[in-house]
Amino acid sequence: MDDNNIFIGGKPFMNYVTGVVMQFTTKNAESVVIKARGKFISRAADVAEVASKRFLEGSVGIKDIKIDSEEFKNTEGKDIRVSTMEITLGKNQ
Amino acid sequence: MDDNNIFIGGKPFMNYVTGVVMQFTTKNAESVVIKARGKFISRAADVAEVASKRFLEGSVGIKDIKIDSEEFKNTEGKDIRVSTMEITLGKNQ
Repeated sequence: MDDNNIFIGGKPFMNYVTGVVMQFTTKNAESVVIKARGKFISRAADVAEVASKRFLEGSVGIKDIKIDSEEFKNTEGKDIRVSTMEITLGKNQ
Repeated sequence: MDDNNIFIGGKPFMNYVTGVVMQFTTKNAESVVIKARGKFISRAADVAEVASKRFLEGSVGIKDIKIDSEEFKNTEGKDIRVSTMEITLGKNQ
């Protein structure tokens, strides 16, 4: 698993923001990819905005955003579709 | 207000999907912008995916995605930040 990926789930919001900020500050990452599925997509947008605008203002920005779908069968064999989002934050040159 | 904008809120999900699909089919739009704020951002991603992949497969795709923040003061004078997203769907050439 790529260390520069942050998967958004149900932990406290600031855990994710801190995770993103620390990738850039203490691990000196060039880019960080914030990933989320379903209802956590809104949260991923919040994490990206707070990390880049409040904590890393000017030095880090949103470089790419992708939206896609994942399909799978649930335990009853029914086809389920869920949206996914990946937000790439990168250091400004 | 631009007719090609669809604002995502709390109405039934398929209302928004139908709205997007009809812009392309009956109004012959070249592009449609799906806009959402806060918790409705996840829903905007779902609308974009279902409209483009299930109903308009091959003919329409995601052309651009923007995430931003809006800041305002609530009724108590406190500064509030909310994330916004705009997804541009366009006809494939």
